[in-house]
Amino acid sequence: MLKRLKEQVLEANLSLPKYGLVTFTWGNVSGINREDGLVVIKPSGVSYEEMRAEDMVVVDLDGNVIEGNLRPSSDTATHLVLYKHFPEIGGIVHTHSPWATAWAQAGKGIPALGTTHADYFNGTIPCTRPLTKMEILGDYETETGTVIVETFKDIDPTNIPSVLVHSHAPFNWGKDPAEAVHNAVVLEECAKMAFHSLQLNNGLETMDQLLLEKHFFRKHGKNAYYGQPK
Amino acid sequence: MLKRLKEQVLEANLSLPKYGLVTFTWGNVSGINREDGLVVIKPSGVSYEEMRAEDMVVVDLDGNVIEGNLRPSSDTATHLVLYKHFPEIGGIVHTHSPWATAWAQAGKGIPALGTTHADYFNGTIPCTRPLTKMEILGDYETETGTVIVETFKDIDPTNIPSVLVHSHAPFNWGKDPAEAVHNAVVLEECAKMAFHSLQLNNGLETMDQLLLEKHFFRKHGKNAYYGQPK
Amino acid sequence: MLKRLKEQVLEANLSLPKYGLVTFTWGNVSGINREDGLVVIKPSGVSYEEMRAEDMVVVDLDGNVIEGNLRPSSDTATHLVLYKHFPEIGGIVHTHSPWATAWAQAGKGIPALGTTHADYFNGTIPCTRPLTKMEILGDYETETGTVIVETFKDIDPTNIPSVLVHSHAPFNWGKDPAEAVHNAVVLEECAKMAFHSLQLNNGLETMDQLLLEKHFFRKHGKNAYYGQPK
Amino acid sequence: MLKRLKEQVLEANLSLPKYGLVTFTWGNVSGINREDGLVVIKPSGVSYEEMRAEDMVVVDLDGNVIEGNLRPSSDTATHLVLYKHFPEIGGIVHTHSPWATAWAQAGKGIPALGTTHADYFNGTIPCTRPLTKMEILGDYETETGTVIVETFKDIDPTNIPSVLVHSHAPFNWGKDPAEAVHNAVVLEECAKMAFHSLQLNNGLETMDQLLLEKHFFRKHGKNAYYGQPK
Repeated sequence: MLKRLKEQVLEANLSLPKYGLVTFTWGNVSGINREDGLVVIKPSGVSYEEMRAEDMVVVDLDGNVIEGNLRPSSDTATHLVLYKHFPEIGGIVHTHSPWATAWAQAGKGIPALGTTHADYFNGTIPCTRPLTKMEILGDYETETGTVIVETFKDIDPTNIPSVLVHSHAPFNWGKDPAEAVHNAVVLEECAKMAFHSLQLNNGLETMDQLLLEKHFFRKHGKNAYYGQPK
Repeated sequence: MLKRLKEQVLEANLSLPKYGLVTFTWGNVSGINREDGLVVIKPSGVSYEEMRAEDMVVVDLDGNVIEGNLRPSSDTATHLVLYKHFPEIGGIVHTHSPWATAWAQAGKGIPALGTTHADYFNGTIPCTRPLTKMEILGDYETETGTVIVETFKDIDPTNIPSVLVHSHAPFNWGKDPAEAVHNAVVLEECAKMAFHSLQLNNGLETMDQLLLEKHFFRKHGKNAYYGQPK
Repeated sequence: MLKRLKEQVLEANLSLPKYGLVTFTWGNVSGINREDGLVVIKPSGVSYEEMRAEDMVVVDLDGNVIEGNLRPSSDTATHLVLYKHFPEIGGIVHTHSPWATAWAQAGKGIPALGTTHADYFNGTIPCTRPLTKMEILGDYETETGTVIVETFKDIDPTNIPSVLVHSHAPFNWGKDPAEAVHNAVVLEECAKMAFHSLQLNNGLETMDQLLLEKHFFRKHGKNAYYGQPK
Repeated sequence: MLKRLKEQVLEANLSLPKYGLVTFTWGNVSGINREDGLVVIKPSGVSYEEMRAEDMVVVDLDGNVIEGNLRPSSDTATHLVLYKHFPEIGGIVHTHSPWATAWAQAGKGIPALGTTHADYFNGTIPCTRPLTKMEILGDYETETGTVIVETFKDIDPTNIPSVLVHSHAPFNWGKDPAEAVHNAVVLEECAKMAFHSLQLNNGLETMDQLLLEKHFFRKHGKNAYYGQPK
């Protein structure tokens, strides 16, 4: 069942420690098959060294386990909210990558300060508001997804494929699991560079809007001219 | 004698350089067999490359060497105080890991700023008070243990499995040597991220107490739901 | 065609990830054959793992593709402006190396603070002015080259073989592609150390001009005495 | 001639990139045979990958090349001044290791802030005064040695085996080349941690003098009890 997607999800999970984005089991990747409405996700708390494609868990969009002997990631409910509200996305990555998490803990979005950021993110990478006490005490992982969706009510998630959850850590997405991981790597790099730029110049303002758009659309959309023709 | 514990302690010691927690021989791990009241600890100043299970030293809780040809770690007396006062713990790790040590040198505990911290530490990771001149001139390593115990007089050591010793470095513990090392890795990661979060937002306050507890008890205690059922 | 130069350009490109200067495909190296007026450059958006010498693209100084099946780097026009205006140089490297990019994003040149810098850069490594809206909307990559040339109107590019493009990232050059990469590595190291020196001493002024010249000319020019006689 | 010392000096040089202390050829190690008054030192500008024991250059204390086909390190004269004035030392290492160099560029000595520092350095690691214009224009490398000796006029070099040269970088020493490299590694670690401690607590004062001495003499002198009996 969903053999190819399981392999993509496994491979994307395994690439997290390779890129230095996770410590121990602190990260999870999922992918969705939109036709069947089924999501493949990493099992909870299993070490990356031991994980195999057949350990990936299949759940439906209501969170019912359709296949798999292991418990799915404890963050599954957050992934499901994002898949339901962001129909353009095919893969999601959650990490506690240290630079992005430092920003999330500080409760601050990452401003666009240069073209590295602009090549991937068409504006500030936002930080959600803190969850309320009711949300924390309620269906916590679902509420985490809901506050992300609220944060993107005026943002196209394909324009900004990452978010920082307040006092927590980032979620990233993409057209498939591999692209979501790619964006998670870029986020971490941008988080690190923005940190240092602000230390060098603490009155620094966001980059020129025109330059931001120039770079974003050099790589995205119908007039893109970066890379090889597809 | 205590063959399996010696292997666990050796393996835990060897994992310290692997995780980037120690330079040269700056670290030591011990484990205790509670039935016999015997502690297995790394020998002093032996390089990690040369160390073998049979080099581990066995001492009793009064510090008498029961087995082994090498001198035990110079920090042995500190470990023994902790084993005597914290009956729940089975392994201890001391490192000079650079981020945690930077906080210890600054004389500051590490505040809980995000869920990475909350997943492992149910509150601020405290820094001890400085040792007095009498304590330094007296039985120094024992006094180091005693000031840690004093720091935890109102804290359950299973809720906060690490401490920073003022002007020195961290000690960490767990139910066995491997878990103590695991906690030492997490401490270092949290120390690094908290440093950067405070640089980004120097008025930053401790995270929401409810969110802290939500995450801690998602992983610990009888209602934990992270990971696979045991 | 230009077989040896293609191999040099390939090797220089492959050394970028080895030195930790690039993430994914964020970097490009070119080399010029001055006799033929032909430039060999990395293709756009091709991963370093897959790249072969025959994938390198040959263009003339007007940007016409003379040989190669792939689209040349999207930054090719910037390289060409530099080759036209800096006749002494034989290789160019563009990266988004994180420390140098942090300075570029902050809009600040890197002051000479020590002999590591002075061994390679005879003064401040300048940051360009921001591009104007007309320049961004116009022939953007060519204008990026033009603003670099403007920045060097009173600087000999062999004295300062790197520049920071405002809100973007560095370009570096040298007598051949390998030397340009070498300078890119040094730039990154100097950017990192200058950052930390300024954090330690925020009133820090530029190093003694005499010491700067002593070190620069210990390694460069006819009285150099560093290294082995050629 | 001096075969064993050449091998020690080679091995110590090769360990510099292994410990992350040097980029390219930015570092040099020497060792002295006190009986013959001969110094073995790395050749200038030769890459670590290519270096062999027979490439090491033998010079006398006046700087005459006694054996070897290559030019000795351009910093040879500095090493010789130190060997002449510090009769207790047997090996010297010069690096541009990034954290220690950041302090040297800032013109600041590294204060003792914790026991890691105290285990190796019995006080502040001093930074020299800047060289005068006459010293820079004169016999520069010799003057660099002389200003180090001046800095240590009231310090025993076996108590503080490292120095920062103002606007330049560190020199380290020890009883032999290997111990000098060991001290260079420790210096870099202490420089990094002190930097971060001061960022966390910018009013931070030097550690308790008694604790400093306790740790220094736990590892050094006739009452040392760290490590195994010799």
